[in-house]
Amino acid sequence: MKKLRELAVDEAFQMFVLIKNADVRMAKNGKKFIAFTFQDTSGTIDGKFWDASDEEIQRFEAGKVVFLSGKREVYQGNPQVKIIQLRLAKTEEAGDPSLYMERAPIKKEEMEEEISQTLFEILNPHWNRIVRYLLNQYKKEFFDYPAAKRNHHAFASGLAYHTTTMLRLGKAIVKEYPELNASLLYAGIILHDLGKVIELSGPMSTEYTLVGNLVGHLVLVDEEITKACLALKIDEQAEDVVVLRHMVLAHHGLLEYGSPVRPRIMEAEILHQIDNLDASMQMMLTSIRQTTPGEYTDRIFGLDNRSFYVPKEI
Amino acid sequence: MKKLRELAVDEAFQMFVLIKNADVRMAKNGKKFIAFTFQDTSGTIDGKFWDASDEEIQRFEAGKVVFLSGKREVYQGNPQVKIIQLRLAKTEEAGDPSLYMERAPIKKEEMEEEISQTLFEILNPHWNRIVRYLLNQYKKEFFDYPAAKRNHHAFASGLAYHTTTMLRLGKAIVKEYPELNASLLYAGIILHDLGKVIELSGPMSTEYTLVGNLVGHLVLVDEEITKACLALKIDEQAEDVVVLRHMVLAHHGLLEYGSPVRPRIMEAEILHQIDNLDASMQMMLTSIRQTTPGEYTDRIFGLDNRSFYVPKEI
Amino acid sequence: MKKLRELAVDEAFQMFVLIKNADVRMAKNGKKFIAFTFQDTSGTIDGKFWDASDEEIQRFEAGKVVFLSGKREVYQGNPQVKIIQLRLAKTEEAGDPSLYMERAPIKKEEMEEEISQTLFEILNPHWNRIVRYLLNQYKKEFFDYPAAKRNHHAFASGLAYHTTTMLRLGKAIVKEYPELNASLLYAGIILHDLGKVIELSGPMSTEYTLVGNLVGHLVLVDEEITKACLALKIDEQAEDVVVLRHMVLAHHGLLEYGSPVRPRIMEAEILHQIDNLDASMQMMLTSIRQTTPGEYTDRIFGLDNRSFYVPKEI
Amino acid sequence: MKKLRELAVDEAFQMFVLIKNADVRMAKNGKKFIAFTFQDTSGTIDGKFWDASDEEIQRFEAGKVVFLSGKREVYQGNPQVKIIQLRLAKTEEAGDPSLYMERAPIKKEEMEEEISQTLFEILNPHWNRIVRYLLNQYKKEFFDYPAAKRNHHAFASGLAYHTTTMLRLGKAIVKEYPELNASLLYAGIILHDLGKVIELSGPMSTEYTLVGNLVGHLVLVDEEITKACLALKIDEQAEDVVVLRHMVLAHHGLLEYGSPVRPRIMEAEILHQIDNLDASMQMMLTSIRQTTPGEYTDRIFGLDNRSFYVPKEI
Amino acid sequence: MKKLRELAVDEAFQMFVLIKNADVRMAKNGKKFIAFTFQDTSGTIDGKFWDASDEEIQRFEAGKVVFLSGKREVYQGNPQVKIIQLRLAKTEEAGDPSLYMERAPIKKEEMEEEISQTLFEILNPHWNRIVRYLLNQYKKEFFDYPAAKRNHHAFASGLAYHTTTMLRLGKAIVKEYPELNASLLYAGIILHDLGKVIELSGPMSTEYTLVGNLVGHLVLVDEEITKACLALKIDEQAEDVVVLRHMVLAHHGLLEYGSPVRPRIMEAEILHQIDNLDASMQMMLTSIRQTTPGEYTDRIFGLDNRSFYVPKEI
Amino acid sequence: MKKLRELAVDEAFQMFVLIKNADVRMAKNGKKFIAFTFQDTSGTIDGKFWDASDEEIQRFEAGKVVFLSGKREVYQGNPQVKIIQLRLAKTEEAGDPSLYMERAPIKKEEMEEEISQTLFEILNPHWNRIVRYLLNQYKKEFFDYPAAKRNHHAFASGLAYHTTTMLRLGKAIVKEYPELNASLLYAGIILHDLGKVIELSGPMSTEYTLVGNLVGHLVLVDEEITKACLALKIDEQAEDVVVLRHMVLAHHGLLEYGSPVRPRIMEAEILHQIDNLDASMQMMLTSIRQTTPGEYTDRIFGLDNRSFYVPKEI
Repeated sequence: MKKLRELAVDEAFQMFVLIKNADVRMAKNGKKFIAFTFQDTSGTIDGKFWDASDEEIQRFEAGKVVFLSGKREVYQGNPQVKIIQLRLAKTEEAGDPSLYMERAPIKKEEMEEEISQTLFEILNPHWNRIVRYLLNQYKKEFFDYPAAKRNHHAFASGLAYHTTTMLRLGKAIVKEYPELNASLLYAGIILHDLGKVIELSGPMSTEYTLVGNLVGHLVLVDEEITKACLALKIDEQAEDVVVLRHMVLAHHGLLEYGSPVRPRIMEAEILHQIDNLDASMQMMLTSIRQTTPGEYTDRIFGLDNRSFYVPKEI
Repeated sequence: MKKLRELAVDEAFQMFVLIKNADVRMAKNGKKFIAFTFQDTSGTIDGKFWDASDEEIQRFEAGKVVFLSGKREVYQGNPQVKIIQLRLAKTEEAGDPSLYMERAPIKKEEMEEEISQTLFEILNPHWNRIVRYLLNQYKKEFFDYPAAKRNHHAFASGLAYHTTTMLRLGKAIVKEYPELNASLLYAGIILHDLGKVIELSGPMSTEYTLVGNLVGHLVLVDEEITKACLALKIDEQAEDVVVLRHMVLAHHGLLEYGSPVRPRIMEAEILHQIDNLDASMQMMLTSIRQTTPGEYTDRIFGLDNRSFYVPKEI
Repeated sequence: MKKLRELAVDEAFQMFVLIKNADVRMAKNGKKFIAFTFQDTSGTIDGKFWDASDEEIQRFEAGKVVFLSGKREVYQGNPQVKIIQLRLAKTEEAGDPSLYMERAPIKKEEMEEEISQTLFEILNPHWNRIVRYLLNQYKKEFFDYPAAKRNHHAFASGLAYHTTTMLRLGKAIVKEYPELNASLLYAGIILHDLGKVIELSGPMSTEYTLVGNLVGHLVLVDEEITKACLALKIDEQAEDVVVLRHMVLAHHGLLEYGSPVRPRIMEAEILHQIDNLDASMQMMLTSIRQTTPGEYTDRIFGLDNRSFYVPKEI
Repeated sequence: MKKLRELAVDEAFQMFVLIKNADVRMAKNGKKFIAFTFQDTSGTIDGKFWDASDEEIQRFEAGKVVFLSGKREVYQGNPQVKIIQLRLAKTEEAGDPSLYMERAPIKKEEMEEEISQTLFEILNPHWNRIVRYLLNQYKKEFFDYPAAKRNHHAFASGLAYHTTTMLRLGKAIVKEYPELNASLLYAGIILHDLGKVIELSGPMSTEYTLVGNLVGHLVLVDEEITKACLALKIDEQAEDVVVLRHMVLAHHGLLEYGSPVRPRIMEAEILHQIDNLDASMQMMLTSIRQTTPGEYTDRIFGLDNRSFYVPKEI
Repeated sequence: MKKLRELAVDEAFQMFVLIKNADVRMAKNGKKFIAFTFQDTSGTIDGKFWDASDEEIQRFEAGKVVFLSGKREVYQGNPQVKIIQLRLAKTEEAGDPSLYMERAPIKKEEMEEEISQTLFEILNPHWNRIVRYLLNQYKKEFFDYPAAKRNHHAFASGLAYHTTTMLRLGKAIVKEYPELNASLLYAGIILHDLGKVIELSGPMSTEYTLVGNLVGHLVLVDEEITKACLALKIDEQAEDVVVLRHMVLAHHGLLEYGSPVRPRIMEAEILHQIDNLDASMQMMLTSIRQTTPGEYTDRIFGLDNRSFYVPKEI
Repeated sequence: MKKLRELAVDEAFQMFVLIKNADVRMAKNGKKFIAFTFQDTSGTIDGKFWDASDEEIQRFEAGKVVFLSGKREVYQGNPQVKIIQLRLAKTEEAGDPSLYMERAPIKKEEMEEEISQTLFEILNPHWNRIVRYLLNQYKKEFFDYPAAKRNHHAFASGLAYHTTTMLRLGKAIVKEYPELNASLLYAGIILHDLGKVIELSGPMSTEYTLVGNLVGHLVLVDEEITKACLALKIDEQAEDVVVLRHMVLAHHGLLEYGSPVRPRIMEAEILHQIDNLDASMQMMLTSIRQTTPGEYTDRIFGLDNRSFYVPKEI
């Protein structure tokens, strides 16, 4: 059976989908409508539900699976669904909401294995123990959470996927520049965004938590390292621990991007650049996949609002 | 007896002073000289020691008390000492180096008392216990350290003095705006710069420590709060604790100034402004005291390189 | 009787209110509607009037008092009025429009008395005479005008209220830093925004005047001082007068904020910081009062578009 | 007889010159020297006077005419004088210091005539009367002062020369765009920098005055217009007067450059651009005239530190 | 017969107009409408076509001439057309679409003649041959194309008109500063925007071409000069050719505006300033002509979003 | 025999070295001295030659090989040479100057082979032919030139070395993101800095050429591609050629860094990031190699003036 993003224009369809967002707005005639974003594993599509009653607004809220009858249309160049009928799905017919979410393209088990193997390459015992300790503590969240609310890697397991890709890049780069301390770079990559499991609310209807807004994921990881040192009886002022804390605190590269310190050791600078490279690639690929060759993508917020051209003949 | 900054121009003198800085430079004739900054409790003054031998360079290093014979001169508008003779002082004749350092204008005991009293006005029990715990742990350093290597409050007990003045301002401001949570503001003021006791090396020949450079005093306080919560069995995710951590992390006001988050609660914004006000006042007063009325001060680095006019007839 | 901002959600009501704004817009069906902002002394609330005829558009214009029958609703988190019936009020039943305007929380007489008393603390005779002269000349406007069209202190007597609060802060700060020239600071505070009585059109439906847009309130005060000097036969080049002019011209702190010169005397820097502090407090308080504890305020334009968290459990 | 800037490299010479600057500095051997800038009508040249006694420092101060025996050398690409002998000149042998100053390339009388003629083209009676009144009041200074302490037009009569050139450009531009109000543009050009006669100390050893630093020449002109209105009984709030004040206040174009308002009428924008054009041309020409074709000029501070290439074969 | 921008408010009319833009949007009731911009030689006016069928959307596309029956209205201060009836025009009754386009106010022939004459004033043979060669090659486009898609000179022949006005300004400026190389300035002016004939798609429904977006008109001219050198056997590394290439590459003045190098020769700086002056004048005039005296223009994007006041009494 | 950078502190030595720079300066005693930078394949070291005669200044110019007797010292943390004796070397005893230059750590032949092999992976025939054509044309320079005058890769064969490393990184990255067009990325990498063979004067005493300053290496490559298209009869407007030109023009990433367009295709963004990564690594490694572990490097200009910490215990 076809999925949401595989439908042809004007094709009628009936399928189970997840309500990702359900914004209630008021039409100019004074009546309310719901601006839905529906989702299945193929991606998302928007659709409007006119003249919504208060009861319907409560019934069709984000996170629910629904049975949607509709027609796939185009509006101002963007795909859209004309809603013909909509009803809540029963769990027995539709399964768990998580089945409808976009997921990382690598299997969770594969990522677990790959990260697990990498731990053997972290030779400094302090770093190795701290990374193992924290990965163990937040294992479930680390492999379930997205890496962001929107922008790049905003899908289930996005955090682990982002980390895995960065590790692969890191290994390739270490091969070119043997002066880099590989253990430090890998430890930094694995920990750098771990604070997002505290900063974000979870893989569904992802929001920022209070501590996410008021402290932020960079400092949250640093605190976790501090606490891990207490638990593991590691001196947090030892040079190697200071350097590891610096890695995570500096990884946004610039003060303006929320790092309280700029990279001051070589591996911190490279961690920042690898992070940037993978985030840029994900944002470009997400947009390019939704764009016809020969056209420009929408403007990408995280890339300074640039739109990118997708060549057609090369 | 006169002190360093009380000498008249062209006055000859002999006195014990502390070597605050001793930079070795090479003259254009290929010989080395030492650019000294001498200090006593009245302030600092520069002087050059020509044709320094390697032995003299080693002998006259920063932190030593010396017996200086010289003449007070002026060079390009700045006071300067012409060194006539220089020898190391013996401890029995000159006393401890710390006797020669610039100090906060309020006595240490008075500040201890004032801060101690303020603790009773921090009514929230989490904040009260955390502040007491950390103040207790770093008591000696807190009342000895400067608030900076240079710029504002760069003298012994400068940190406590800066904190005390800010508390006084905070109390006056709370009176005008009763909506402010006084407990939170006072807790924030006391903790905001406490990380400097880890960021800086101490009251003499103050330098940045490694962890000071790579982590910075804002995050260092936050870590201390985290550890205090563990020790005191306080939930670090409780709203009031999150808000306290936010106070210290946000107190530089702007990301560009090294805060990983901008102030997002009212008291954090006001803490930042009080900090700014007291720092500006100290920098202006330090420069103005060294300037003849009717003239302009030197450019003040921490105030965007502005020079200030000192009126003479008002 | 309840006021506008005291109504419960879904409560029906009938009351006299002032039309603060009445923007005519076109609905997507091609018909016009009026987007009203209604006001009484408790605050403002929005409501839409659909299918407005040209006659109704003319009848219900800003500044009119109306008798409004409606229901208090919520729309996207913001309070809103559903208009059931609307008619113009007669003066005899509803009184003057000014009765419905938001006002400073201190009585006008109290502020007059407080400012009046402060004049005795301005000891420099030039400053004292200039301040008295200008305060006398613009007395009515000074105590009636808002301090802005929007942003902070945008209500009747807002200018005097802003000035009064700044004087109180100023007095508290002078106590901490006795080196500040109190006379100069108070004179500067009283005059700094006086140009707004020329820059703005008045307390109702406040707009910028032409000279407000093309010259601005900073230079407008300076001109008034210049003219006062002519009238009072005070030499405008005397150091104390130059310094007073500098206070008002420099009080925005940065060239980017419209000051033709940056603060170059200590009291000018402090005037700027006090102004900033009071403006920030007013903007935060206005937003926080309209926000449920545990939520974030709307973004505040005048504070770099930050939204603030309102703690609920502290 | 040759002038300063006409000497060949290594040419020995004896001539009367003016001391433009005489900075006393300390050599690395602890002895003082004077860094002179000598001047005659052909331009300026630097030279160092080693081992200066206190008496010599007092004798050879800026503003004095001296008889200089020396040799013209080159040092790091810049012309320089090796001082062989130096003595004060007597007035009877050397004449007035002003004879040695760089001057505008147009005669003062010619500029007076040209500006005088332009007054007849200012048809609006308010503008015409205000301009005549102020030009009359500051006539002597207007035709004697430089337009700056350094940067562009920093020579005697530079202010009038800058104004005259701008008027010529203005007239050419008005011909291309007849929609421009010529009267307003010319009135704005004549007044725009008139405040410099108060901002600067005079044509010799030019410094900023206190009111120049604390108020600035833009506001100083505006005040003069305000006072002129009082004297001439012109309503300063009349639209045409407001617009004229705006012209002078806005002529720096950007807030960052010290204008309290940005240009908001067409003629104010053009006044700013003409000012910019003439200033750029003067700075480039001054540097280019001192550069060998085929080389680059020194970096020009007022043009964002760019250096310019001087083509040799075109 | 009256033209579009000559109609009185509420006047009914019937006339042939060109569809300049036809944006399809969805109304809040779920039905599509077309937001038209109609155009004739007097200017443009907007109008909405409600409940558009797919067939109508296809029929009334940009570039078509239509017979429009309507009424001239005002909506939120902007002129607007209420569409009563609309049909496609036949070529025989309405003529070519180009007859309805806004045009430069100087005749094409006149501009050709003026530019042609200027070629005789380009005395350097390399520059003369290159300019003639390229002008010859792109003659048709040069005199037909606009200078932009929107902003300034966005009308037929706008490119040639912009060039012609700049030449006139250039000649006036050369007269004031004889040190400028007139040949170079004129050659630079003629070539500076020639790349727009490759960057833009043409005078109707102007869009950026792919090479326009990915290379840009500055580099496109430079490439044309390079190829011209090959064809004319001129050494592209000769100083005069390098300098000419620099003129076109540097004419945006700042790197932020897309010049790969900043002006480093005097004539390049002046070319940039003349370009800026003419563009500013055109943007201001376009807005001012649509504004009632005594009002402010809309915000002008190309002038940092400033709105300009149009005086009424001067 | 030991090389320059292998000497111990205070070690006396005699060896042949190359004069890399020889700046003549004037000492404060009025006598000239030469500030030398000596070089051999191990790196560079500074040394001063006091009281230089004009003849010596001419004799010891940059590019000459000399026989240097000296002592290795330290001055303010930087290595330095005390010159004891200096004489020109004869070619027969010292060999060619190029033997003393710092070189890329990979052999030229190896790089030629590696780049040569990569050509087979450029599958698009246009790109393949253009790259081969240009590489062939500038082969000698491409493998001899540095990649910069200073900053990163400022040594012989630096350009080819930088290109080779980037190709290796590019290949690793393509493996992680198969959506990248490998042919395009490799073609872009090889060509991106090729313009430096025109922008710079050569491997010895490297300076910017006139066309380097006035046009810049980005546009210079683009012109070369344009001319190659003419020679190879490839349509320069074909999409693949436009995209290739875009790669080289956009590779500085930001307009502020001199790219006339920002990256608008995915491979252009990645080319920019790879370039940035390799340049950062080179700059950090160069500084770190000259720094004792446990210390900070000097500030690195090309990395926003940051200094980096070199850990000692990890």
